[in-house]
Amino acid sequence: MKFGGTSVADAERLKRAARRIVAAREQGNRVVAVLSARGKTTDELVAAAEEISPTPDPREMDMLLSTGERISCALCAMAIHDLGHRAISLTGSQAGIVTDSSHTKARILEVRAERIEAALAEDMIVLVAGFQGVSNHSHDVTTLGRGGSDTTAVALAAAVGADVCEIYTDVSGVYSADPRIVSDARKLEAVSFEEMLEMAASGAKVLQLRSVEYARNHGVRIHCRSSFEDGPGTFVVGEQETMEHALITAVTHSTEEARVTLTGVRDEPGAAARIFEALSDANCNVDMIIQNEPLGEGREGAELSFTVPRDDLRLALDALEPLVEELGIGRIDDEPEMGKVSIVGAGMKSHPGVAAKVFGTLAGEGINIEMISTSPIKISCVIRADRVGDAVQALHSAFELGADAIQRERPIGEQSR
Amino acid sequence: MKFGGTSVADAERLKRAARRIVAAREQGNRVVAVLSARGKTTDELVAAAEEISPTPDPREMDMLLSTGERISCALCAMAIHDLGHRAISLTGSQAGIVTDSSHTKARILEVRAERIEAALAEDMIVLVAGFQGVSNHSHDVTTLGRGGSDTTAVALAAAVGADVCEIYTDVSGVYSADPRIVSDARKLEAVSFEEMLEMAASGAKVLQLRSVEYARNHGVRIHCRSSFEDGPGTFVVGEQETMEHALITAVTHSTEEARVTLTGVRDEPGAAARIFEALSDANCNVDMIIQNEPLGEGREGAELSFTVPRDDLRLALDALEPLVEELGIGRIDDEPEMGKVSIVGAGMKSHPGVAAKVFGTLAGEGINIEMISTSPIKISCVIRADRVGDAVQALHSAFELGADAIQRERPIGEQSR
Repeated sequence: MKFGGTSVADAERLKRAARRIVAAREQGNRVVAVLSARGKTTDELVAAAEEISPTPDPREMDMLLSTGERISCALCAMAIHDLGHRAISLTGSQAGIVTDSSHTKARILEVRAERIEAALAEDMIVLVAGFQGVSNHSHDVTTLGRGGSDTTAVALAAAVGADVCEIYTDVSGVYSADPRIVSDARKLEAVSFEEMLEMAASGAKVLQLRSVEYARNHGVRIHCRSSFEDGPGTFVVGEQETMEHALITAVTHSTEEARVTLTGVRDEPGAAARIFEALSDANCNVDMIIQNEPLGEGREGAELSFTVPRDDLRLALDALEPLVEELGIGRIDDEPEMGKVSIVGAGMKSHPGVAAKVFGTLAGEGINIEMISTSPIKISCVIRADRVGDAVQALHSAFELGADAIQRERPIGEQSR
Repeated sequence: MKFGGTSVADAERLKRAARRIVAAREQGNRVVAVLSARGKTTDELVAAAEEISPTPDPREMDMLLSTGERISCALCAMAIHDLGHRAISLTGSQAGIVTDSSHTKARILEVRAERIEAALAEDMIVLVAGFQGVSNHSHDVTTLGRGGSDTTAVALAAAVGADVCEIYTDVSGVYSADPRIVSDARKLEAVSFEEMLEMAASGAKVLQLRSVEYARNHGVRIHCRSSFEDGPGTFVVGEQETMEHALITAVTHSTEEARVTLTGVRDEPGAAARIFEALSDANCNVDMIIQNEPLGEGREGAELSFTVPRDDLRLALDALEPLVEELGIGRIDDEPEMGKVSIVGAGMKSHPGVAAKVFGTLAGEGINIEMISTSPIKISCVIRADRVGDAVQALHSAFELGADAIQRERPIGEQSR
């Protein structure tokens, strides 16, 4: 069971989480719960660091930020004791979460769950501080990056062979589109790992991308559900479990994209590699890339466009600066106000014509598509940020994803669409 | 160098501490700094726990409270980096502070300073989270009790063979009496470990008792000084270093005492042992004890009085309750509004007549002495709490401890009084 920051934000909510954990235990389950930092704790710690230093040392950032989840876990253990159960809180390090030493964005290398197993065997509820681990060589505190608690939960579920990894959050599951944009967006009963990966990568915020990857690689069933209401949420499971696929599962979006276009890149082997190496070294998350080969002798070099999260734009431009001369880049243009709309669905693999319908729908709304990228189960279009809402509504409606458009959901396993 | 909570309370003060640490480094010293939690952080964490549970689990309390010092250290390391020096923050566990497993009041068993030594060898400034360690068997986070950061600092100073353990605080040293009560109280250049122990035990708050004990046992020179001004504070050193002793060094006091009197305690071997075992099991800090033997057949049993910190009074009465019948205790009286005034001075060992002067001085003020206890270098009198201020002033003046009464201080080593 994993509880996010809003689910443990104050004493009342934290006690509610404790009651849910105890209820699961009393149903006969052995329970490991992963907690995030409370409400705005992480933001406050980041602000404290910024007050001290404009460029805080990453190792020290990790030492600082990892305290938030420990506070949540210690408090929750106290609450569980008062409910008459035994509980023990563990830091990431105590829980055996061994990572590499990339501070502020460490990757889990191994989970040594002996201490968790021992506590479970002693009939204890185990609470683990999310978002953190210990580096394999230097034994320093590391953190897994924002949202890393999801990954902690999935990694522990895999390590202890849990039946399910329940992710409790302030929304009641995964929806066919953002309900704030699409009023008849429908809660999904189940999505496959692949769909969830595409959705997380294309803007759905309910689960962290890496946690879904980890779950897929280790076959961990995820159940995304609400901290504040009972009833099932959305299961994220292997494709074989999701029964027949709808053509399209969901429309996702992001309004936080920026595009960079380089013109006149020297047409020689390795130029693109140099560019994306430089961006990667600067920790820019490059999303879509499009390269046009030069059309003839008259054109000077290739044109290369890519998108990055808007927050990374400055970083990207700074990283490219030193390459202008080396690669003979003619011009660097940037467009900060971009967005992206995507449709995701495992069913589209066997249905041609989906792309045509997407393009037609957007054209019908007068929305210009600036870049396109596809995978077997996803089509993404980069468009102007201010048209994203219209695009999501139009696609959701065109593919009949709304609650009114198809029959109401039934419990998982009885799906028939 | 150890910095208390007020010395790192906000960004400005924390940067000031960082500058002091860097200055010490730049003077050619290798520096280990121990930091407390910032300002009210510990109180806030305690409040958060109380919001969750009326009786928080001690292990979880330690997990919770230990975060405060880590935050201070991580932030200070960032500040030091910005000053152009390399620094590393370590938790108590990483610093090798191994304790027993008495949560919330653990004792240091051993300091394994290899990691600190390695960091110092790499020319780094080492910052250690005060007040905490790791338990020897279960590898849980432990805390050393309020003020435990002083003990952390002294223990590390001993482990690395430091020249001096500087304790930075919001007062500029140890005074001949509390300057808030005695206007001409004088800052002391040096006191011996034994004097400081008696002073800490009898109400001086500048250093935690255990840290002074640890310093004496390991021969660690302490320098108590102000975070906010330069200039020397007070050295706490071996008796041989303090030169000639003044007759009396300081007057200390406490207004937070309570007295418990048992009448009709059955006069049999082991009765007192049973009583103080029960109090010790309840974690009551018994200070003074006086027992009057029964005077004759007519008297039923002994009379026994003892004092405890006022906060422990309830605990003490509850602990005694089950013994009333077993030991035939006739009556239990308590007096919560007691105080204590003490004079401390290594010189009094060789000067009879000091006690007489104390009693005469208090009598002259019309202050009734309710209990007396003495050591070779201390005389303590329990009196009513509301007369403590008068008693301190009278004794300070009677023994001529004021700044006007004796020549002004000179640098340590040149003392001549």
